[in-house]
Amino acid sequence: MAAAGGCCAALYSFLFEYDTPRIVLIKSRKVGLMNRLVQLAILAYVIGWVFVWEKGYQETDSVVSSVTTKVKGLAVTNTSALGLRVWDVADYVIPPQGENAVFVMTNLIITLNQTQGHCPEFPDKTTVCSSDKNCTEGFISTHSNGIQTGRCVVNKGHSKTCEIFGWCPVEDDENVPRPAFLQGAENFTLLVKNNIWYPKFSFTKRNILPTINKTYLQSCKYHPKTDPFCPIFRLRDMVDAAGQDFQEMAVEGGVMGLQINWDCDLDKPASRCVPKYSFRRIDNKDSSHTVSPGYNFRFAKYYQTPEGVETRTLIKAYGIRFDIMVFGKAGKFDIIPTMINIGSGLALFGVATVLCDVIVLYFMKKRYYYREKKYKYVEDYELGAGESYGSQAENQQCRDVR
Amino acid sequence: MAAAGGCCAALYSFLFEYDTPRIVLIKSRKVGLMNRLVQLAILAYVIGWVFVWEKGYQETDSVVSSVTTKVKGLAVTNTSALGLRVWDVADYVIPPQGENAVFVMTNLIITLNQTQGHCPEFPDKTTVCSSDKNCTEGFISTHSNGIQTGRCVVNKGHSKTCEIFGWCPVEDDENVPRPAFLQGAENFTLLVKNNIWYPKFSFTKRNILPTINKTYLQSCKYHPKTDPFCPIFRLRDMVDAAGQDFQEMAVEGGVMGLQINWDCDLDKPASRCVPKYSFRRIDNKDSSHTVSPGYNFRFAKYYQTPEGVETRTLIKAYGIRFDIMVFGKAGKFDIIPTMINIGSGLALFGVATVLCDVIVLYFMKKRYYYREKKYKYVEDYELGAGESYGSQAENQQCRDVR
Amino acid sequence: MAAAGGCCAALYSFLFEYDTPRIVLIKSRKVGLMNRLVQLAILAYVIGWVFVWEKGYQETDSVVSSVTTKVKGLAVTNTSALGLRVWDVADYVIPPQGENAVFVMTNLIITLNQTQGHCPEFPDKTTVCSSDKNCTEGFISTHSNGIQTGRCVVNKGHSKTCEIFGWCPVEDDENVPRPAFLQGAENFTLLVKNNIWYPKFSFTKRNILPTINKTYLQSCKYHPKTDPFCPIFRLRDMVDAAGQDFQEMAVEGGVMGLQINWDCDLDKPASRCVPKYSFRRIDNKDSSHTVSPGYNFRFAKYYQTPEGVETRTLIKAYGIRFDIMVFGKAGKFDIIPTMINIGSGLALFGVATVLCDVIVLYFMKKRYYYREKKYKYVEDYELGAGESYGSQAENQQCRDVR
Repeated sequence: MAAAGGCCAALYSFLFEYDTPRIVLIKSRKVGLMNRLVQLAILAYVIGWVFVWEKGYQETDSVVSSVTTKVKGLAVTNTSALGLRVWDVADYVIPPQGENAVFVMTNLIITLNQTQGHCPEFPDKTTVCSSDKNCTEGFISTHSNGIQTGRCVVNKGHSKTCEIFGWCPVEDDENVPRPAFLQGAENFTLLVKNNIWYPKFSFTKRNILPTINKTYLQSCKYHPKTDPFCPIFRLRDMVDAAGQDFQEMAVEGGVMGLQINWDCDLDKPASRCVPKYSFRRIDNKDSSHTVSPGYNFRFAKYYQTPEGVETRTLIKAYGIRFDIMVFGKAGKFDIIPTMINIGSGLALFGVATVLCDVIVLYFMKKRYYYREKKYKYVEDYELGAGESYGSQAENQQCRDVR
Repeated sequence: MAAAGGCCAALYSFLFEYDTPRIVLIKSRKVGLMNRLVQLAILAYVIGWVFVWEKGYQETDSVVSSVTTKVKGLAVTNTSALGLRVWDVADYVIPPQGENAVFVMTNLIITLNQTQGHCPEFPDKTTVCSSDKNCTEGFISTHSNGIQTGRCVVNKGHSKTCEIFGWCPVEDDENVPRPAFLQGAENFTLLVKNNIWYPKFSFTKRNILPTINKTYLQSCKYHPKTDPFCPIFRLRDMVDAAGQDFQEMAVEGGVMGLQINWDCDLDKPASRCVPKYSFRRIDNKDSSHTVSPGYNFRFAKYYQTPEGVETRTLIKAYGIRFDIMVFGKAGKFDIIPTMINIGSGLALFGVATVLCDVIVLYFMKKRYYYREKKYKYVEDYELGAGESYGSQAENQQCRDVR
Repeated sequence: MAAAGGCCAALYSFLFEYDTPRIVLIKSRKVGLMNRLVQLAILAYVIGWVFVWEKGYQETDSVVSSVTTKVKGLAVTNTSALGLRVWDVADYVIPPQGENAVFVMTNLIITLNQTQGHCPEFPDKTTVCSSDKNCTEGFISTHSNGIQTGRCVVNKGHSKTCEIFGWCPVEDDENVPRPAFLQGAENFTLLVKNNIWYPKFSFTKRNILPTINKTYLQSCKYHPKTDPFCPIFRLRDMVDAAGQDFQEMAVEGGVMGLQINWDCDLDKPASRCVPKYSFRRIDNKDSSHTVSPGYNFRFAKYYQTPEGVETRTLIKAYGIRFDIMVFGKAGKFDIIPTMINIGSGLALFGVATVLCDVIVLYFMKKRYYYREKKYKYVEDYELGAGESYGSQAENQQCRDVR
């Protein structure tokens, strides 16, 4: 026949013949309904879940972000060491500008007028000494403030400690000031400007929405209910939102995550794509699990005496670092994922047939009867045996034809 | 029969029987061609679009990046306050090193020799006063430079303002210098070293391509046409490329995005994987929509007088922050996505058959005739009626057999 | 018949009829086995590879991370310029805190007591001069330290060079100190605190595992074998792990990548989700390919003389920047990818049938015989010819029925 003929006959039949599988139509309420139900379930899954719920028809892209921050506020302190003092942004924000984070100093241990020289080491179990024998010249440990000279000297009234060469006098950070030095920090405000970009869709947006006007921005404070889109955050509100106590956190410092979520469905109007703010404490709360609880670092201001001697003021700054974490996915209709999902959806339909076939052919009373209808046996070997029930099958078939 | 026999007979037939659907071959130009065309379309989509265009056979990974920057250049200024002065990198890059961003100061408001003390507040609607009654002791607002003492004092010739305690004299940032203080900044150059990494493929590359030699690097400047791979950028060129005016931007500052796109097809030779640079202004241009237009921050240099009094020079630095944004996806052949796409592609072929069946069986003149060929009716209930047209169907079938 | 009847009849048959394709069962060891083997292969692929190996049933999310670092250690230097000097964290970590990176100064070129004034330029091929003619007033190049005054002056005993106005005396960075100034840096330790978050699964974890107690943390040092989870790294160990020589790297500086890999299978207990540390040198090793080999930047400490003249100490800091790169993917069971994979897996089964059909119908001895069984020809046109072999087909069919 055609396909058996010459090449062009084959092509001819290939082009002009349409082949469709032969079907057995079984009139059975049970099976029929079951079949449709299974198909319905699959359809419901493909349409409802994959497409409506999970938006399987969308291609996604993850966010590229740029953040700038600005802190505002003043704090007043009055201590014996420093007297009455006002702290402004230039004093408590270190470094003056960050990229995705800003550090606000809330507490500090200040050591004035340090110079390179000799002085007794800060007393701890390794540095306390009774005589020079206890001190090794040139010894440095990870916790020491300088290199030991090998001498054992009196440490202002205290027990004697080994003498060191280094920045003197040494810092005494045994006790962190409590309550925090800059309690006023809780009223500082943090302005966050965030510009996001979805490269794949070349979609860009700011967290200062076009609907927001200047006067509103000058007065507003973020509030999850009343002002969800105001980009100005009171420090304390953020810490509270994270379920922490600001004054407690201020003492030893910590790290706060200001999370900006930009999940957007770009098939909807761009105005529906808005930031969602959330707050989380990131560093380890329980001091038991960490070597240096909270968050602090040391820095120094360097001076020069008229005689040209370099002195410095060492500051161990405790404070809260606000990490602005921007994340999110944008989705937009795309043909590829759609087709992939449709394709596999269709494939799943096969399951329905397979399932019903199994039931019809193996579990129903009339299974033999159905099998005969569905199957046609063709012998390839053992002609005798094969022929026997092969024909028998066909006979039955022909029988119920007549 | 076999499947009905004992378990091992079932296994036997399972293993040694091959079942393939029975097909009706309809010799019809119309349907045949249509069927092939639909299949062709699907094939074209699967091959052409999914595989060739969208590279559906590739697994993708997103970039991990590390950036270092270096600014070069000098600016000369001559003002009454500071006299003739040369600004070098150490002066105008703050902080001296960043991670993915570098800030170049282009304009500044400098307040010399501030000390903690009493002075009149900067005059604005809230601080102007006629008598002490207008001033509340201890009052601090977000915009105040210090804590009010409650007295109303003369503000050098101007109207009287409330006295404050804080860093004195207070900064006067009412007018931003115009033109920008460091106009020369437009000729500064920015060297960007970017090293990227695709962990999944353990593929790493630098933006300083192996083809680039040292002498070229010392002389070259980036130009989209002539020098697309030179990693040294003239500040002004970047701002121009973003469609902005440098001198205008320099006044109030701003944020520029230097975007490095590393989209790579790793099935091609690694040398084809090169960075693409693009430039974008990130901060909000129109001042109407933002509380603090442009980009600026405050920092201070701290000094100590011989008497040990701490003084500082407060600088409100306006400038351009260059955010180096590195992004991109690498794709490499992988069996999983390939199979997924092939699989769903195959499934889509089913559509062709379904479609044609519908047409053949419902819309063609000879549809009844085709139906008889395709379907075989099997009764399950109401034997009488069912039998009747069930047989009738088969009869027709047998009829056109003879 | 039913489908041809009124709409409701159609619905009736749609609901209560079950259609399943008619199958030819070919009893052939060859084909049967082959068919099963192909199916087995596909099954093995779908189950084994996609699901077990590639975890195709999981939805993935990429990591959101926050990093804090703390360096500890002291270095002692003894030079003619500075005398005996101890360097602590506040001295060698610049800026005092970073976000995902920390810079440790290992080498430096220090220029003391610079003031704005006139002095000879640093000698190089462009600045050496014999007379004022060689110098252009107001000339500035990218490498110059100031603006040329146009005069040619003696450069302390050396050949004469053009005079400049700028920060004087000019920095002499011709030779980098070798060995590195702060050799002791190799013993510094870096504590890395990393908190990661998988937003999609709201799963969060720290690199300081709950199993680690405080005493361990105070003493431990990271070691790939013995202490793989200790977050405290000795600088030299990291550089060694990257296959670099610390003292060599310390001279000109460089960038090290501390990579933290957080690949997690969240279907397993959370305790199995642990960080993997690895180390890599990021900057370009071979100096031939880069304008500024290694890693360095300039910064200055500003002082004021009693007369109020601003002086500064310029420091060109060479050092190692440690970039903490956090990456990873978390996977968790999700219905969508599972179904997609199952779906396309099923579709692939189709391949088996197609393949075997081709063999059976085109390559086997008895192919014509099989074709007759599989196909039923239906004429649509050229009734004569068509009918002829159409019937012939059916006849054969009927023949082997009887």
